[in-house]
Amino acid sequence: MASMATYFVKTPSPSPSFPKTFNTHFSPAPRLSFPLGSKPRTRQRLRISNALIEPDGGKLVELFVEESKKGEKKREATSLPRVKLSRIDLQWVHVISEGWSSPLRGFMRESEFLQTLHFNSLRLEDGSVVNMSVPIVLAIDDAQKRLIGESTRVALVDSDNNLIAILKDIEIYKHHKEERIARTWGTTAPGLPYVDQAITNAGNWLIGGDLEVIEPIKYHDGLDRFRLSPAELREEFTRRNADAVFAFQLRNPVHNGHALLMTDTRRRLLEMGYKNPILLLHPLGGYTKADDVPLSWRMKQHEKVLEDGVLDPETTVVSIFPSPMHYAGPTEVQWHAKARINAGANFYIVGRDPAGMGHPIEKRDLYDADHGKKVLSMAPGLERLNILPFKVAAYDKSQGKMAFFDPSRQQDFLFISGTKMRTLARNKENPPEGFMCPNGWKVLVDYYDSLVPADSGKVPEAVPV
Amino acid sequence: MASMATYFVKTPSPSPSFPKTFNTHFSPAPRLSFPLGSKPRTRQRLRISNALIEPDGGKLVELFVEESKKGEKKREATSLPRVKLSRIDLQWVHVISEGWSSPLRGFMRESEFLQTLHFNSLRLEDGSVVNMSVPIVLAIDDAQKRLIGESTRVALVDSDNNLIAILKDIEIYKHHKEERIARTWGTTAPGLPYVDQAITNAGNWLIGGDLEVIEPIKYHDGLDRFRLSPAELREEFTRRNADAVFAFQLRNPVHNGHALLMTDTRRRLLEMGYKNPILLLHPLGGYTKADDVPLSWRMKQHEKVLEDGVLDPETTVVSIFPSPMHYAGPTEVQWHAKARINAGANFYIVGRDPAGMGHPIEKRDLYDADHGKKVLSMAPGLERLNILPFKVAAYDKSQGKMAFFDPSRQQDFLFISGTKMRTLARNKENPPEGFMCPNGWKVLVDYYDSLVPADSGKVPEAVPV
Repeated sequence: MASMATYFVKTPSPSPSFPKTFNTHFSPAPRLSFPLGSKPRTRQRLRISNALIEPDGGKLVELFVEESKKGEKKREATSLPRVKLSRIDLQWVHVISEGWSSPLRGFMRESEFLQTLHFNSLRLEDGSVVNMSVPIVLAIDDAQKRLIGESTRVALVDSDNNLIAILKDIEIYKHHKEERIARTWGTTAPGLPYVDQAITNAGNWLIGGDLEVIEPIKYHDGLDRFRLSPAELREEFTRRNADAVFAFQLRNPVHNGHALLMTDTRRRLLEMGYKNPILLLHPLGGYTKADDVPLSWRMKQHEKVLEDGVLDPETTVVSIFPSPMHYAGPTEVQWHAKARINAGANFYIVGRDPAGMGHPIEKRDLYDADHGKKVLSMAPGLERLNILPFKVAAYDKSQGKMAFFDPSRQQDFLFISGTKMRTLARNKENPPEGFMCPNGWKVLVDYYDSLVPADSGKVPEAVPV
Repeated sequence: MASMATYFVKTPSPSPSFPKTFNTHFSPAPRLSFPLGSKPRTRQRLRISNALIEPDGGKLVELFVEESKKGEKKREATSLPRVKLSRIDLQWVHVISEGWSSPLRGFMRESEFLQTLHFNSLRLEDGSVVNMSVPIVLAIDDAQKRLIGESTRVALVDSDNNLIAILKDIEIYKHHKEERIARTWGTTAPGLPYVDQAITNAGNWLIGGDLEVIEPIKYHDGLDRFRLSPAELREEFTRRNADAVFAFQLRNPVHNGHALLMTDTRRRLLEMGYKNPILLLHPLGGYTKADDVPLSWRMKQHEKVLEDGVLDPETTVVSIFPSPMHYAGPTEVQWHAKARINAGANFYIVGRDPAGMGHPIEKRDLYDADHGKKVLSMAPGLERLNILPFKVAAYDKSQGKMAFFDPSRQQDFLFISGTKMRTLARNKENPPEGFMCPNGWKVLVDYYDSLVPADSGKVPEAVPV
């Protein structure tokens, strides 16, 4: 449990970075009869590993340099070739360093890259298989490759040249972009957001290796306290005495249909015999495309949803998932699920067309809306995770609230599309009462109000989940 | 062993379709001290399953209708909706029906299609995993789908409306062509031969189901006797008392570099302690692109190679692999290897850029030349297969023969490219003595001589392996 030891070094008191100030609903008092900090460490570890699903590879990876060695590492880095990280690269360092991608210990070497592309999984030395569906790679260009020369390690720095990490035992291999794109997205059509942002203009080489990260990644945007690491989430779930954790990945405002689904999931888990299922409401916090609602606005909206009591704060943990978004549908939903196993979730809610988007150049969805949940249910390395398919919720006019769609009285239901929601919010109109809590809706209206429409008058579109 | 029973029904004497007439070198007398036919059947079965690698899924699939039920099936078929098979579809029926794709029992349903695209493998009911890297699917168009309506089975007929098979318990699902192409080839560039031939103009639906094949597929091209099924090959390897079978997949003429490699492989296997390693020289017989040397010419060339003693007929089985060619590099090489497990091979020779080709629109190879063998060595479901990487052979001017390349005396070696070989053969010139046996070379010259050059003067190019 070296990773847990690292964790305790990093955060000497039980949960100092757990959200306290933003909203009390986000961090209810521990429900255990004895506070975590009062138990001997060995006992804590046992309880953690007994109660929660085991991380991929058996132990959670954490890749931070021990306090006592930081000076040495910083001195060493001054003599190493430097690679400058983009914003998205830095998000991946964040992801890898906290163990979301356990058992990965750094940016992928070619063997991991190829297994990811071809098999969406990695075979470990003991023959077991873990899921790994999106390439987590670092690109460098010809000049950087020349600069690195025969060095076996490089220093990774941010845009201000601050040292972020050392990458050691490096391997440099060709960045076959077209093949990476085709195998990850199932298309090479121009206009895929992540491709445009992070691949097309990236270097022609990939550099893999093991990470030694100097400090936990922070963004200083007022939201860092919501960025709980997998170890911190596991500790929180243990504090709350969770016997089931169900994760809900989202990158859009929460409406009452989502809330209904989450509440209903808890009900089903209780029926199954679980005593205290905890919801991990887990908005994605890394790169998203321009027409998604930005993280800060989404967090405000989620806050209101909890304040208004739409979700029960006692049984909900809101935290930010630091991964960038690929919009790679059935391939990416596996990553979204796998990362949550590492954070302690053993149930994963999957909806229609997860991580999907419109085809960039054709008038259709990029992915078959049902493929995501099908692929997820068959994916290697995810056998331990319970997949909970999303029921369809819509606005039930007869009840004046969001309800699960009942095909036998189809006429009673109103489907409010992302386009419809966006148009309403932009025009400062209200949706039907019961669609979203009023304070949550107001955040959305305020967001669109804050935008300066482009010349075309086209306003970014928010699509539910 | 229902499949073996089916086999014995199909071929009541031990190996009636094994090549006898084409060239005795192709079918040396059994080397066992007791002929197979004289042993009780139970003993034979035990010996087969003990000596040879187990087929994927534990038993070899064979999907032929029993003789006694043919009449009934034919009558049933007359009342079923009909789907007409293309030449390539028919080749896939051949492949599936003989068990090359064991444990597949028919054209893929969506679950198998998705697992193939995303994971290059199928998870079986017992939790075990078999490799399956290329989609084996049957496309139908809107009109055919309408015609099928609610029927649960269809009749598959050839271009002359002869009944080939019944497909039962059918499932019709969308043919997402772009995604299929991108995930299988790692590109969607126009000009991929199989895509142009079999996907672009194919229907927008796929129909999966279980096959009941009326008769073994025959082509009546004089080469059917070389088309041994996996069961027949297994029987032949057992007759020869093989304790190792090493497969060599090829779609090009055999030169002495290949022969050296195959001979050397046998030597290494003997050194490893095997007493009687048998080579399966296994030219691909299904669809190939227009500029590959056609099967009939390749078979003539291979015949000469054995006649001239370049390969030892005593330890070589030449047979035709009925699969169409995808030219899908690292994805396809897994299929080539997996199918040979089902035919009894436990060693597979893999070369540089297997199943590769030039990029259809860029001036480069489509695949990284090393990816094929890397991906093969990591592929799920192929752990049981021993991968033998291809050593590089070139013409050694100092010895006047093909030899393994020795980088320490680079200047002695001449690499004869496919382009060079083609130019020589087209011009009726001879390659350096020792490059290919003279009679084999003559076949190649005759082939190019038989071609009417196109207006451009461009002649199809033969690329070694």
